[in-house]
Amino acid sequence: MSSQRKLYDLAGADTELRFSPYCWRVKLAMAHKNLNFETVPWHFTDKDVIAFAGTGKVPVLVDDGKVVHDSQDIAEYLEAAYPNEPTLFNDHATRGLTKFIKNWAERTLHPAIGRLVLPGIFAILHPKDQPYFRKTREAAYGETIEEIAAKREQYRPAFEAALVPIRTTLTEQPYIAGTGPSYADHIVFGALQWGRKTSTEPLLGEDDPISLWMHALLEGYGLTG
Amino acid sequence: MSSQRKLYDLAGADTELRFSPYCWRVKLAMAHKNLNFETVPWHFTDKDVIAFAGTGKVPVLVDDGKVVHDSQDIAEYLEAAYPNEPTLFNDHATRGLTKFIKNWAERTLHPAIGRLVLPGIFAILHPKDQPYFRKTREAAYGETIEEIAAKREQYRPAFEAALVPIRTTLTEQPYIAGTGPSYADHIVFGALQWGRKTSTEPLLGEDDPISLWMHALLEGYGLTG
Repeated sequence: MSSQRKLYDLAGADTELRFSPYCWRVKLAMAHKNLNFETVPWHFTDKDVIAFAGTGKVPVLVDDGKVVHDSQDIAEYLEAAYPNEPTLFNDHATRGLTKFIKNWAERTLHPAIGRLVLPGIFAILHPKDQPYFRKTREAAYGETIEEIAAKREQYRPAFEAALVPIRTTLTEQPYIAGTGPSYADHIVFGALQWGRKTSTEPLLGEDDPISLWMHALLEGYGLTG
Repeated sequence: MSSQRKLYDLAGADTELRFSPYCWRVKLAMAHKNLNFETVPWHFTDKDVIAFAGTGKVPVLVDDGKVVHDSQDIAEYLEAAYPNEPTLFNDHATRGLTKFIKNWAERTLHPAIGRLVLPGIFAILHPKDQPYFRKTREAAYGETIEEIAAKREQYRPAFEAALVPIRTTLTEQPYIAGTGPSYADHIVFGALQWGRKTSTEPLLGEDDPISLWMHALLEGYGLTG
């Protein structure tokens, strides 16, 4: 049984040492599906060993004669080939995954945007709110509003970095949640709309896939924003 | 109809300017559920205006006499109160959300870990692999392995920052995907296992919620790692 399922698995000089993040994904995914497998230690330069798979990189899975490479393709293959085993993409996981995206938005995306827009927000607040905002935000960010404003260009790379997973996802599928919007889209939209409404200069190009998605969301819901 | 549903919505000195990320989440969520609503402009210091809700922050929703505050609680309330309207947590969104987490892992988490472990990986590679690894990774990271090693302490904060959404999520629920593991867990595990296997010093404390989750995953699958 197990001899029919082989995973070419990246190894160090010590072939017991297996450290590829992509191979580990696949090993857990196979275990999740109750599949036995053996691993074949593979070194970066053993290109000829996996040439039969049409790739130069592991993971490469050989499952009863079928050859699949690329961890994402292997996960999709396993899900399709073993539908009666536990699913890798449990429908009911949506709420849990949305919670992760909420935490990412609040702990990574919000601070990254905040450092670019806080001075702009201060400027557009009702004067009665300004002392409150200054006190609470300077405590939260550990810098004065003027210090944050002066370091805007220093803070820009963290903002750009935080956008990358959003933009990458939106070039692969129309919404964060896939083919249609869900609450995860609303969470990420909220963060970016906060930036859009308060930044003194545009944070995103008009033809950025993120801008187009924001526009599509508003339009789909019949909201002006 | 709309007069029965009111959202207290953060405003600037110009009360037409609405910029709270949390209020925008709720506005999109209500639009998603085809619910009419009116918004009440609210300023940070108008604490007395929303004291009836038992909070000092917006969003506060008053829906036909029911009072709900905190955007996450409002989303859960809307989902429960309007089950016949489009869901905010579409079960079939799991695949889409997993794609976002994949992109986040590969574009944020992997580079953050990579900058800490690349020199360690180089050291444990088969000697025949070392020139290949040096060439490809130095091109990808834009620095020599020795430069990356020298800047380890500089790179540590980005790693710590990338862990925050993972750790926060795992203190709220046992797996990234919620009550049970899914492929999103495998993706994030793979990244951290890569670090764990190759770092010259422990990247995580043994009692870190992330370490406990990694251990639980391996044990649940009967894997050694």
